[in-house]
Amino acid sequence: MSETLSPTVPRERGGAQARRNARAHGPAITGRPYINRGIPPYDVMSEENLLRIEAATDRILAEVGIEFRDDPAALDLWRRAGAEISGTLVRFPHGMLREILAKAPREFTQHARNPARSVRIGGGSVVFAPAYGSPFVIDHEKGRRYGTIEDFRNFIKLAQTSPWLHHSGGTVCEPTDLPVNKRHLDMVYSHIRYSDRAFLGSVTTEERAEDSIAMARLLFGAEFVERNCVIMGNVNVNSPLLWGGGATQVLRAYARANQASVIVPFILGGAMGPVTNAGSIAQGMAETMSGCALAQLERPGAPVVFGNFLSSMSLRTGSPTFGTPEPAVGSLVVGQLVRRLGLPLRCAGNFTTSKLPDAQAATEGTMSMLSAIHCGANFILHSAGFLDGLLSMSYEKFVMDADLCGALHSYLDGVAVDDNQLALDAFAEVSPGGHFFGCSHTMANYRDAFWESTTADNDPYEKWEANGRHDAVSRANRRWKQMLAEYEERPLDPGVDAALQDFMARRKAAMADAWY
Amino acid sequence: MSETLSPTVPRERGGAQARRNARAHGPAITGRPYINRGIPPYDVMSEENLLRIEAATDRILAEVGIEFRDDPAALDLWRRAGAEISGTLVRFPHGMLREILAKAPREFTQHARNPARSVRIGGGSVVFAPAYGSPFVIDHEKGRRYGTIEDFRNFIKLAQTSPWLHHSGGTVCEPTDLPVNKRHLDMVYSHIRYSDRAFLGSVTTEERAEDSIAMARLLFGAEFVERNCVIMGNVNVNSPLLWGGGATQVLRAYARANQASVIVPFILGGAMGPVTNAGSIAQGMAETMSGCALAQLERPGAPVVFGNFLSSMSLRTGSPTFGTPEPAVGSLVVGQLVRRLGLPLRCAGNFTTSKLPDAQAATEGTMSMLSAIHCGANFILHSAGFLDGLLSMSYEKFVMDADLCGALHSYLDGVAVDDNQLALDAFAEVSPGGHFFGCSHTMANYRDAFWESTTADNDPYEKWEANGRHDAVSRANRRWKQMLAEYEERPLDPGVDAALQDFMARRKAAMADAWY
Repeated sequence: MSETLSPTVPRERGGAQARRNARAHGPAITGRPYINRGIPPYDVMSEENLLRIEAATDRILAEVGIEFRDDPAALDLWRRAGAEISGTLVRFPHGMLREILAKAPREFTQHARNPARSVRIGGGSVVFAPAYGSPFVIDHEKGRRYGTIEDFRNFIKLAQTSPWLHHSGGTVCEPTDLPVNKRHLDMVYSHIRYSDRAFLGSVTTEERAEDSIAMARLLFGAEFVERNCVIMGNVNVNSPLLWGGGATQVLRAYARANQASVIVPFILGGAMGPVTNAGSIAQGMAETMSGCALAQLERPGAPVVFGNFLSSMSLRTGSPTFGTPEPAVGSLVVGQLVRRLGLPLRCAGNFTTSKLPDAQAATEGTMSMLSAIHCGANFILHSAGFLDGLLSMSYEKFVMDADLCGALHSYLDGVAVDDNQLALDAFAEVSPGGHFFGCSHTMANYRDAFWESTTADNDPYEKWEANGRHDAVSRANRRWKQMLAEYEERPLDPGVDAALQDFMARRKAAMADAWY
Repeated sequence: MSETLSPTVPRERGGAQARRNARAHGPAITGRPYINRGIPPYDVMSEENLLRIEAATDRILAEVGIEFRDDPAALDLWRRAGAEISGTLVRFPHGMLREILAKAPREFTQHARNPARSVRIGGGSVVFAPAYGSPFVIDHEKGRRYGTIEDFRNFIKLAQTSPWLHHSGGTVCEPTDLPVNKRHLDMVYSHIRYSDRAFLGSVTTEERAEDSIAMARLLFGAEFVERNCVIMGNVNVNSPLLWGGGATQVLRAYARANQASVIVPFILGGAMGPVTNAGSIAQGMAETMSGCALAQLERPGAPVVFGNFLSSMSLRTGSPTFGTPEPAVGSLVVGQLVRRLGLPLRCAGNFTTSKLPDAQAATEGTMSMLSAIHCGANFILHSAGFLDGLLSMSYEKFVMDADLCGALHSYLDGVAVDDNQLALDAFAEVSPGGHFFGCSHTMANYRDAFWESTTADNDPYEKWEANGRHDAVSRANRRWKQMLAEYEERPLDPGVDAALQDFMARRKAAMADAWY
């Protein structure tokens, strides 16, 4: 199933809209801008047990507390809001964070440079974004090597070419051939230039976050940015119960600009959290609530996305594991808890520890991705490409995963029920023991009936054999090359492009290269 | 997570129990006899739409009707029950089948020769059984070839060795080296001899079904069999809306002996049913309801399992597809409808059209298998080994799939919530920014915390590389050989064995070999 959308541009005054209209020229887009789910999330936990986990979260917040290092301004905000501070440790009176979070937006739009690609985040929306943060890239021929800015651009182009992704993501791989202190400029520029979808900005320092937002202002206009979300930062808690390394400065920078933060703990059960699922969930809730609430203190009403990232570990070797059953079912519980808070949710993705895009990767990834779908996640980072516990971004897995994203469009539509779908007319035409191949109901409906994979081989064995016995990796290898060849640039307004280039040049000139 | 069960043998009088006690000696079993789900099924459809599908089913039954060929006795039963007969076409007055089905058991136990392996079918139980019916077998070294009785025994031994399967299945592959009219004897004997779990009997003719039941009587004792389910037959409707080829004679034979039938349509949307999901579901409900009801007319209270098998097709090539999104979400709806009927459910399995156990197979299989888990299926045939649209039984995929069955044990346990699981004590021990590696809560809980895969590789990349860069297929290849080597026969009572051998010899001597 695919559809072509004619972008409907809302009427709006001023230069920002004119600029966005100018940006909107280019090829017609295929696919939906995002999914509106047709089936409800999957609730697995009783009210009684949800209340127990919430009580545990509240006790962690009130009795254990969360540490905020390296950010005196954050401590000031907490003090003024009524929290109990001792040194850098903050304890939260019962109910305080829930009260603050009640004022955060339940959903919001992140605008894209192509207005038809803007995404809704929250409620029944589902937005697929590529994997984020791998130092390595891997493909079938060249194997694993460090990522470069060329790989970075390639993954943006692959995402842009896929009708099943909705968002350009952020650090789709680390462009390790660029200086650490300057690569954020090239990353943000690449998203703006090679994609017409929404994207994520830098979160490694407050200054780089400010640079990212400044570039978004050049694209969308400062006035538009002041009133609308156009960029998001994905900010990590240093689990357990520690905010450090300037992360809160970054999230406050995004909030100050009225831009969204995605707040995400990373809990590997037994390492950064308790080895038991309920305890890890309670901890993650406390951590994310504190980050989302801090954004609200910085700027009431700033958009936030409640993130969760559960994982387990191999108790035989101590290695992290991904795509395992405990985080999958734990995510369903997290979804229930976050819906009670009324915040947009980021959770799970196509996770695996496999080193190859093989059956292990697909089993783990599908289990994990379905947990994201079922738990009601609105923003699904790591929807495509994630390999080797996020150490590698895989070209082949990227297109396999994007294909699964396509399947999930149809899955999330659910089963439609009306006279045409119930097909009683077809039974008048086809007798018992007959077949529906050419009946008029089939002819009228077959085009949209089933989602069609671009990577699966459904041919009979003999035909598959005659065609060269290709496995999924071999087909995916051809597919990503074909997609890169099909990539069509969506021209950027030359004035905007020049302003971005000028900004980057000035910022790069202002500092020496740093490689660590 | 694994557990060792000490079989609890219920007190019972008579020779059957004595025989079963005698059979119960042997190695301690690992794994649970079946799963009792800790999370509810996933309901995706509104009451209003469920009622519409039910109304469509009722109209198909009342207005279109279902044909029953080759079985005058079945037509007699329908006539006496008040159905409207014209030729071989049966139409069912509104509400008639629902009333008959209200008397079928909501759940029942299928007894195994090892009483600790008996399975509960219905309610919150989940029973995993191997794939069923492939003419070919395939492995990594020898490729695809026709199945033999040696392959048949191998798959029984692999299932028996896995702690994650619960049932020995039926035609785990076709033993094509044995005569068509005699191979059912060797198949039933192999299940009895090489497995101590419950199994399925023959359904290809009424006579072979009777042979299968006769062999079960030799194992369990005629009196025990008369009162308990010890064998099941998996009987297929000839969709659309046709019972033919003696299938109803077979299901009546099982019912007459108080043994269970699994009634399954096979609907490939657009071929054997409407191309729209709701229409296929309505048709499948009508077909299965008619089969389950016929079993009740043959013998009121006979156990039945309500089966469903939805599939889609490639609209580009016309080939069947498996593990696609429409059947996955359709299965969730089937689950809701069957729970309203109050019958045990068989649905989905680890389906794929891939010709290799690659990423395509694992993505499709995991999506399909999770739909079985989520829709509340009680008996999940095709849980392991299914490849190439069921044309091949794969040795490597069998052990990968069994591994997924293991993961699903933990998934179905859900998230436990009590003081230990909430781990508040651990937070007293571990400060913000610390770690949980050696804390006493971790030490007390880590052994049972996470399910551990036997086929996944979670090692760091460098270690994986040093160990030979094995992919999932290569590891699975080693694993099934290891499992076959580890297989321990669970001795059969010599008297029972002799009686079975004698029965088979007499039956084989009574007819010439037939090869078609």
